Amino acid sequence: MAETSDIYEKVMEVARRRGFVWPSSEIYGSVAGFIDYGPLGAMLKRNVENLWRSFYVFQEGYYEIECPTVGNEAIFVASGHVKEFADKMVQCPHCGEYLRADHIAEENGVANAGTLSAEALQAALYELPCPSCKEPLGEAGVFAFNLMFETTIGPGSQRKGYLRPETAQGIFTDFSRLLRFYRDKLPFGAVQIGKSYRNEISPRQGMIRLREFSQAEAEIFVHPGEKDHPAFHRYADYTAPLLTIARQLDGQEPAAMTMRAAVGEGVIANEYVAYYIALTHRILTAIGVDPAKLRFRQHLTDERAHYAADCWDAEVYSGRFGWVEIVGIADRTNYDLRSHAEHSGTSMTVFMPYDEPKRVVKRRIVADMGVLGPQYRGKAKAIADALAASEPGEDGARVTVDGEEFFIPADLYQVREEEVEVRGEEVMPHVIEPSYGIDRMIYVALEHSYAEEEVDGEIRKVLRLPPAVAPIQAAVFPLMNRDGLDDIAQTITERLTQCRILAQYDDSGAIGRRYRRQDEVGTPFAVTVDYDTLEDNTVTVRDRDSMEQVRIPIERLPEILSALISGTTAFRDIRA
Amino acid sequence: MAETSDIYEKVMEVARRRGFVWPSSEIYGSVAGFIDYGPLGAMLKRNVENLWRSFYVFQEGYYEIECPTVGNEAIFVASGHVKEFADKMVQCPHCGEYLRADHIAEENGVANAGTLSAEALQAALYELPCPSCKEPLGEAGVFAFNLMFETTIGPGSQRKGYLRPETAQGIFTDFSRLLRFYRDKLPFGAVQIGKSYRNEISPRQGMIRLREFSQAEAEIFVHPGEKDHPAFHRYADYTAPLLTIARQLDGQEPAAMTMRAAVGEGVIANEYVAYYIALTHRILTAIGVDPAKLRFRQHLTDERAHYAADCWDAEVYSGRFGWVEIVGIADRTNYDLRSHAEHSGTSMTVFMPYDEPKRVVKRRIVADMGVLGPQYRGKAKAIADALAASEPGEDGARVTVDGEEFFIPADLYQVREEEVEVRGEEVMPHVIEPSYGIDRMIYVALEHSYAEEEVDGEIRKVLRLPPAVAPIQAAVFPLMNRDGLDDIAQTITERLTQCRILAQYDDSGAIGRRYRRQDEVGTPFAVTVDYDTLEDNTVTVRDRDSMEQVRIPIERLPEILSALISGTTAFRDIRA
Repeated sequence: MAETSDIYEKVMEVARRRGFVWPSSEIYGSVAGFIDYGPLGAMLKRNVENLWRSFYVFQEGYYEIECPTVGNEAIFVASGHVKEFADKMVQCPHCGEYLRADHIAEENGVANAGTLSAEALQAALYELPCPSCKEPLGEAGVFAFNLMFETTIGPGSQRKGYLRPETAQGIFTDFSRLLRFYRDKLPFGAVQIGKSYRNEISPRQGMIRLREFSQAEAEIFVHPGEKDHPAFHRYADYTAPLLTIARQLDGQEPAAMTMRAAVGEGVIANEYVAYYIALTHRILTAIGVDPAKLRFRQHLTDERAHYAADCWDAEVYSGRFGWVEIVGIADRTNYDLRSHAEHSGTSMTVFMPYDEPKRVVKRRIVADMGVLGPQYRGKAKAIADALAASEPGEDGARVTVDGEEFFIPADLYQVREEEVEVRGEEVMPHVIEPSYGIDRMIYVALEHSYAEEEVDGEIRKVLRLPPAVAPIQAAVFPLMNRDGLDDIAQTITERLTQCRILAQYDDSGAIGRRYRRQDEVGTPFAVTVDYDTLEDNTVTVRDRDSMEQVRIPIERLPEILSALISGTTAFRDIRA
Repeated sequence: MAETSDIYEKVMEVARRRGFVWPSSEIYGSVAGFIDYGPLGAMLKRNVENLWRSFYVFQEGYYEIECPTVGNEAIFVASGHVKEFADKMVQCPHCGEYLRADHIAEENGVANAGTLSAEALQAALYELPCPSCKEPLGEAGVFAFNLMFETTIGPGSQRKGYLRPETAQGIFTDFSRLLRFYRDKLPFGAVQIGKSYRNEISPRQGMIRLREFSQAEAEIFVHPGEKDHPAFHRYADYTAPLLTIARQLDGQEPAAMTMRAAVGEGVIANEYVAYYIALTHRILTAIGVDPAKLRFRQHLTDERAHYAADCWDAEVYSGRFGWVEIVGIADRTNYDLRSHAEHSGTSMTVFMPYDEPKRVVKRRIVADMGVLGPQYRGKAKAIADALAASEPGEDGARVTVDGEEFFIPADLYQVREEEVEVRGEEVMPHVIEPSYGIDRMIYVALEHSYAEEEVDGEIRKVLRLPPAVAPIQAAVFPLMNRDGLDDIAQTITERLTQCRILAQYDDSGAIGRRYRRQDEVGTPFAVTVDYDTLEDNTVTVRDRDSMEQVRIPIERLPEILSALISGTTAFRDIRA
């Protein structure tokens, strides 16, 4: 194994050199927080996104939608981002550097710096040195900096727009359309994979903290009283390491539990949250995260958003960054829908019919308009309406119309009790939200897949990426670049590509060097065409991890490689 | 066929109602130029993008990369967008509306309004009425409005950023990295699929003119002297309707030509451009564009960018919008690389070794430092360097150092002729760029697929989308919602989904209504489980277009549907 201390440098050196990740617009001096995915990185990313889809879209049946990244201001006023999506910052009065105020306080031992008010933070910073020029920060004012990128839509600067800070809001604003698409029934879900943006003050953590990043989010709308997942059986016996609130407070390590037990014992709030914890464990290990370095940490009560019923982070251990949040899984109750309903004036409820209509007694307050009319003239109608909604006392009812208060004696209205048939009720769904950071997933998959080992006295660098996400799935080599071996290898490459296996032809350098080149980028299988191929139409297939080889007839290659890549067959099983 | 006059309304009504395309953030009053792809639209879009990839990435072998949508200012200064990516506009002095100056002039019969200067346009507009309030525009000033969305990166407003107006620039700025990835050889290509942005003044053409849109672009770097496509044989006999410059000037219709003939006769500049015209024809018809409504129009000399060697637009006829540009295919020569090389100071050339090293006679000018040194002191070295690069006359050479001019007599240097070995040369590649507008492709595919026909006295609305791009590929119906038919249908749906066939279960309403519902969204195949299924494990498969049905054993469904969807089998062949 590589030393953990310098694992980041080693992984990023390979990533840059071999075309996974490049600094963006390097030729103009890259701007921190932006990266380019090179040819192999973009392929890996697409494989990770498609693997995510195979679960969320195909298995769960949640349709994907695609909303713009530029949104008008009203959306983010309603979502709370205009007001609250801000970091506290400070500008050094000596060198002019912009700094995260809470980070400086924290690095200097101030407890809970993230929760302090601007005033308290400023006081805490007074004697602390600027990390850049080392002068004391002194009177430098702490101020809030909104993390949304701002822009203007159309000419004339009248219409403010923001780059979305998360994909979720597009799903919430489409709620009514989605509800109709799913024929007015709960539960239903929608997902979105796409770019989101955070105008970070000074991002310095590579792929972990980007200003432009990719998210995969699912918003699942459920009946507030029915939080049992209809397919819970799938993951009821699935085990995941849970770092509960109690264990955090006791300073304990995470404990492995089945999802059934965790819900049964009240550790996880409901089946939905548990289901997506299990599914997340499954997805992260499928892309190459080491299960021994993966835990689910429950948000502490004071860390959790006030409206959330429960919230868990999938955290992955990085040799460079420590425990990093990769996925958040939250029961957000009806916070988002309620807020959008209030701000937009649109109904965001679902009519849930009862199995049988119910007969309910309702009280109606009916004004005596014969008296009310002459007495109150133009205001009589408004007073009658106010009466209908009032809670009358024994003598009469007190109502307010246009700011004016009226006392209406009991003999000016009748209170009637009527039995009415009610066929159902309007329910505002709760939202279960699993939210994945794609770039972080890719970084930890690379870090955990990276290995160095000694083979025949040389260091072999190898990315042990699972075949399902590896950017190149099969390399094809002619042993020699002549005698028709190269033509056969080219034909095989084309045939594999037609079967949508990402194959790469390589005829350059010694065969051992070609193997190393492919090991380094994680290619799980290498096919070699040699002189025996001319005799019997077989080729060797070499397994990246065991470095073992088997001979296989050319015509069976697409089928066998497809099975190896999808994981339905293991390499040791085809050796026989 | 639907009436062409109202085809747009009909298509968009289905698109909105059934979840293809929705106005974005409708609940806050949508902003023109932004759309949401609903569940079926996003699926269709993904299918279109993947079909594009199957050609450009898998067949052509051009790797995809992924760059940020936010770019720093320097990129777009170099690309020319900061200076030139602007529309001429005017604000009505009466009603305050912002208007495209050239559009108003054009609509009022001013010829070539798009090419007029701001002054000439202003004169032309003087007496014309504002389209909004009908008052004459009078003195309203015409000004340039840059169409890039602007934003600020990080705090302190120091660093300007733009939302990219095209994906191409990311590929150009990564040129050196890509060249190394492709091991310093030409030709090579890279592609990108992603969002681009144009801050349109007042977009009013639905999916045809969006402020945020998706592009698929390929940049193919070729040797300037070698513009023969290595796989030209693939499309040499492919025929496409070409509206050449000559035919446009003569007012003629397009003429069908093979690519070989078009290149041979000099109609298309080179094989690369012809190859991508053919490939584009193939892709557009594969997604459902009617070949009778597709033509390739060559840019006229004054319409083509000054640097471009040749440029063709794939234009598709829309019942609403007329001929619409969907794809542009251009030979951009070395314009982009040269501009980025100049602005960034980075080399953007490729060293092309000769087959055999060449011996060339080179002239060297060597200064006599023994005289130059004492005479010019600190400037002697700079003068010697300037001499080496100078073109001396008979008496001497005139050189400029630090703005100062010196005349150096011929006896102070020697001109030597030396034979040197040259192993190759630095070449700046030319760029062939096919650029696709994904949203426009989707709109025209919907419009051309839409049909209404009378079946049994009722109007059947049907989207004849090719199976490869249809959002739902198979519907599964239980004839009755009981007797176990529903369980079998559910199991079939899950099985198909596992095989990555997008299947949708539907048990609601009469079977005829369910067929109509699927016809309307373009589902090519519907599977029905009936009472015979309980006896013999067969189901009926119904073809959307012919409405014919065949019985098929359940266990063969995934294989047969996959073949039908990929197009390797036609429905009439399985009837037998």
